[in-house]
Amino acid sequence: MENMVASSASSALSVRNPELRKDRINNRWVIFSPARSKRPSDLKSKSPATNPNPKQECPFCVGHEHECAPEIFRVPPDSKSDWKIRVIENLYPALSRRIEPDPSSDDLDRCLVLNGFGFHDVVIESPTHPVHMPDLSASEVGDVLLAYKKRILQLASVDSIKYVQVFKNHGVTAGASMSHSHSQMIALPIIPPSISLRLEAMKEYFDQTGKCVLCEVPSEELLVDESTHFISVVPFAATYAFEIWIVPRNHSSHFHHIDSEKAVDLGGLLKLMLRKVSLQLNNPPFNFMIHTSPLQIKESQLPCSHWFLQIVPQLTVVGGFEVGTSCYINSVFPEDAAHVLREVSVD
Amino acid sequence: MENMVASSASSALSVRNPELRKDRINNRWVIFSPARSKRPSDLKSKSPATNPNPKQECPFCVGHEHECAPEIFRVPPDSKSDWKIRVIENLYPALSRRIEPDPSSDDLDRCLVLNGFGFHDVVIESPTHPVHMPDLSASEVGDVLLAYKKRILQLASVDSIKYVQVFKNHGVTAGASMSHSHSQMIALPIIPPSISLRLEAMKEYFDQTGKCVLCEVPSEELLVDESTHFISVVPFAATYAFEIWIVPRNHSSHFHHIDSEKAVDLGGLLKLMLRKVSLQLNNPPFNFMIHTSPLQIKESQLPCSHWFLQIVPQLTVVGGFEVGTSCYINSVFPEDAAHVLREVSVD
Ligand SMILES: Nc1ncnc2c1ncn2[C@@H]1O[C@H](COP(=O)(O)OP(=O)(O)O[C@H]2O[C@H](CO)[C@@H](O)[C@H](O)[C@H]2O)[C@@H](O)[C@H]1O
Ligand SMILES: Nc1ncnc2c1ncn2[C@@H]1O[C@H](COP(=O)(O)OP(=O)(O)O[C@H]2O[C@H](CO)[C@@H](O)[C@H](O)[C@H]2O)[C@@H](O)[C@H]1O
Repeated sequence: MENMVASSASSALSVRNPELRKDRINNRWVIFSPARSKRPSDLKSKSPATNPNPKQECPFCVGHEHECAPEIFRVPPDSKSDWKIRVIENLYPALSRRIEPDPSSDDLDRCLVLNGFGFHDVVIESPTHPVHMPDLSASEVGDVLLAYKKRILQLASVDSIKYVQVFKNHGVTAGASMSHSHSQMIALPIIPPSISLRLEAMKEYFDQTGKCVLCEVPSEELLVDESTHFISVVPFAATYAFEIWIVPRNHSSHFHHIDSEKAVDLGGLLKLMLRKVSLQLNNPPFNFMIHTSPLQIKESQLPCSHWFLQIVPQLTVVGGFEVGTSCYINSVFPEDAAHVLREVSVD
Repeated sequence: MENMVASSASSALSVRNPELRKDRINNRWVIFSPARSKRPSDLKSKSPATNPNPKQECPFCVGHEHECAPEIFRVPPDSKSDWKIRVIENLYPALSRRIEPDPSSDDLDRCLVLNGFGFHDVVIESPTHPVHMPDLSASEVGDVLLAYKKRILQLASVDSIKYVQVFKNHGVTAGASMSHSHSQMIALPIIPPSISLRLEAMKEYFDQTGKCVLCEVPSEELLVDESTHFISVVPFAATYAFEIWIVPRNHSSHFHHIDSEKAVDLGGLLKLMLRKVSLQLNNPPFNFMIHTSPLQIKESQLPCSHWFLQIVPQLTVVGGFEVGTSCYINSVFPEDAAHVLREVSVD
């Protein structure tokens, strides 16, 4: 670390030179600019996600089920007030399950307008308000992951659904309007732009090298931790400071093919990464996203598409440069972020 | 408006159905979801960009020039303490003008790392702290636009510079760390991802129709206002609520070909749009970006690339869905936003 970043934001001299790195998975450039920030280990959230009042109650709390939009299922299935997880409809859905889907067409690309058909669900991860994902046990986090899986399998049976995005918002500046621990799933009648671009980029890598880019073993420097079936890394061209990817060791295109053993294993690694992020970065607002493959993926794309889970601590506000270019400025080099995250000791 | 959005956020029924629209210029889908928000005319910023204390002084104020990074030029050129605009180096630049550019190569696509060579400048738009862009006269805004032009022409003479992004951040949640009226310019040794994608999409439209997509006359419903040389519209598939594009009527690939007469004309329309946005949406944080073409654009791309200026009021925080998919959820239909903006009376 000594020769890394020796200055603070108030002296812009004598820091490592900026660098551009190509993100091969998303096919975009990222600017690494240490002069824009403090030492990596000093970077903390200025607006930590507040610890909810332990006595607080909300519509997602046990006992308030009647204040919620309809339930889809609960875990365990036959539980009463002793449920652990509930998957419910979103009360203000972005897409509507109650309108007609457009006639399924291979030629969606030529359409300019589609009915807003789709599903928007909420996964309540705990019955009690103050319990957040990192407070759950590895196997309880695994149960949340298996609830995602179960719901994706249900959604996959609807013909016109092309992609399911699972995501979590934690903290107001990461978009969360509810503080009770939850995640969301949006099932879309289109394949979103960034998923098509990622598939193309991964296909290009595969065509050039004969390998899946996410099957390649990352450099030691970028590794944060590992479990039986997963590794966690800071990607070589991370878009965001302290971004982490959890990648299955073995090639797998779809998250929803995960089995119970792997779900518990992933649960443990995810919990550990969230705790490290929280401890190191002052309980920052964060998002996580499961990046999987389109439901009806072509056979030829299977060998080059590999699902992963992306954790993004939200430490800065984006400005006009990023809005305009989709090129991000990251003030922390990935190897420095990985180093800092490896060192955080949890218990 | 009567049959538009009759309910508030607390009753998700009886609103217009959600819709997906294809943004043909950026080649991506946007979800329009009125149920996610209030009536369009009730949408206001919850964190208005604060009006700076008129007595406040900062390094960008006249008399504080010595607290700034080096000046590149000022307007008028021979002014002393009576300058109107200063273009200066950014003290914490994202890219460095003091390192070697990588050897210019047509094969940048195969590189994974580039030296962070580039330019990052700040344009101070007024000598005094409380004066913001909408407070300037049309011709003073025109002078700011001509300062961008002059600086782009200087940057264009550097071989390895491929694209110049001009952008403005106003208000903390739009990324601004300085409240004194300013904009920024970043000159890049690469063409950023969203610019390549836009060019491709516009080329595709051109190949299909023989026309430049931004030369097409937009529907009346989407028009906000017009001037001699420009129109302002809410785009058909606006990514953000109340987003506005100002588009030159006549085909032009590069912003920096603007002449003085057009700069004043654009200055007037830009000022008007910023005032409307500020009045209607409670002085919201906003960004604007000038979307121009790469400096060394291919001859064949000239007929299909058309520059424009995009104004984005920042009314919501993005969440994991947008981070994961690049698919945005906009709660205001563009024709409703245009209607509301047309009606705002300024003075
Ligand atoms: N009683 C109830 N029953 C059922 N559902 C209920 C409910 N009360 C509230 N909800 C829903 O619960 C969800 C909670 O979601 P989050 O707090 O993660 O973010 P939200 O979706 O509001 O927006 C964030 O995430 C989205 C998607 O990324 C962004 O578009 C947005 O800008 C950002 O603020 C909301 O979607 C809400 O509609
Ligand atoms: N004395 C001085 N002399 C010269 N320059 C000085 C100076 N004091 C400050 N500056 C510079 O002035 C600029 C002011 O810029 P803004 O307030 O528009 O946003 P900033 O660039 O901080 O970051 C926002 O915009 C960028 C780009 O969109 C995002 O990466 C980021 O997250 C977001 O907060 C800063 O870049 C700063 O380095």
